[in-house]
Amino acid sequence: MKYPKALENLIKELASLPSVGPKTAERYAFYLLRQNEDSLNRFAKSLAELKGNILVCSQCLAISETNPCPICADLKRQREALCIVENIQDLIAIESTGQYQGLYFVLGGLISMIDKVGPESINIKRLENRINKGGIKEMILALNFNLEGETTAIYLNKLFKDNVRITHLAKGLSAGSDLEYADQVTLKNAFKYRNEIK
Amino acid sequence: MKYPKALENLIKELASLPSVGPKTAERYAFYLLRQNEDSLNRFAKSLAELKGNILVCSQCLAISETNPCPICADLKRQREALCIVENIQDLIAIESTGQYQGLYFVLGGLISMIDKVGPESINIKRLENRINKGGIKEMILALNFNLEGETTAIYLNKLFKDNVRITHLAKGLSAGSDLEYADQVTLKNAFKYRNEIK
Repeated sequence: MKYPKALENLIKELASLPSVGPKTAERYAFYLLRQNEDSLNRFAKSLAELKGNILVCSQCLAISETNPCPICADLKRQREALCIVENIQDLIAIESTGQYQGLYFVLGGLISMIDKVGPESINIKRLENRINKGGIKEMILALNFNLEGETTAIYLNKLFKDNVRITHLAKGLSAGSDLEYADQVTLKNAFKYRNEIK
Repeated sequence: MKYPKALENLIKELASLPSVGPKTAERYAFYLLRQNEDSLNRFAKSLAELKGNILVCSQCLAISETNPCPICADLKRQREALCIVENIQDLIAIESTGQYQGLYFVLGGLISMIDKVGPESINIKRLENRINKGGIKEMILALNFNLEGETTAIYLNKLFKDNVRITHLAKGLSAGSDLEYADQVTLKNAFKYRNEIK
């Protein structure tokens, strides 16, 4: 005996989610089986309507309900600063700080030797067009502080340093850091970029 | 700026799955966003059609595509043995061993003092009706070896011991057990139920 076909189908779909194995998929499916028909239909609708209601902003390449996206369309934003992010998640994280008033550009990935992602696989050509249109004075690289992020930053710096001012996010101790447990690279950076107490 | 509404909706639905937090839901949603329309529709369909195609077998109370389920309908199965399981997952686990040829009964839960699940909250009334119909000679309790499983076993034993022979699964070392790391209860049981080498 096996599970009913309808349940098997759902388990198969759930197991395709990232890092969800057959056992977890089963647990999700049994949870869903206990929900009422309305909840399941609402979930089904949210899946079926996902793609149809999402556009890509032609200016910053972020996903959005509108094109241009609310940020690119907002005339009150500082239009001379362009913050380069890997993806929309990073963009939203930065927006939620309320610290930045400029525009964004979504790379859609980072250069990675290991995963064989070259500059041509991400939106660097589109970024060049964006810079060539003029108007941007500072490019802020807000990329992950890891091998891929650093590689991409070095590449972008080489490519654009003659046209715009390029900065990147500060490196140092995270909030709540315990010196004793900070890794060597972080500690080294924290020392190197130490600054006056204001 | 927030995520587009369609994406927010999906994240909310995914976050309702057991032990899925907002961050995991986001990761699932972004994975789904990269899939094509066909896959999403297939997933949506499997959700929408889940309930409609699943019945409960009126004899063993297992979920099934048919009523009675294939096991209860199978005349070649030994009809004098009834294996009591908590849920369909346990039933399928036992079936997959190929060791058991009798019938099943799904309790739909275990008695739990902590979670306030009494005998009336699970299918014990239905089990009494099943036993009273006659024909069952052995009731095999295949319940979890934990507080809830043991409580339920004691309760069922009291209730039915005058009508049928009641057995439960053997207790001892699991396959691959390392004596050194076996817990005391397991080791105690392994000693207590030691048997001749055949």
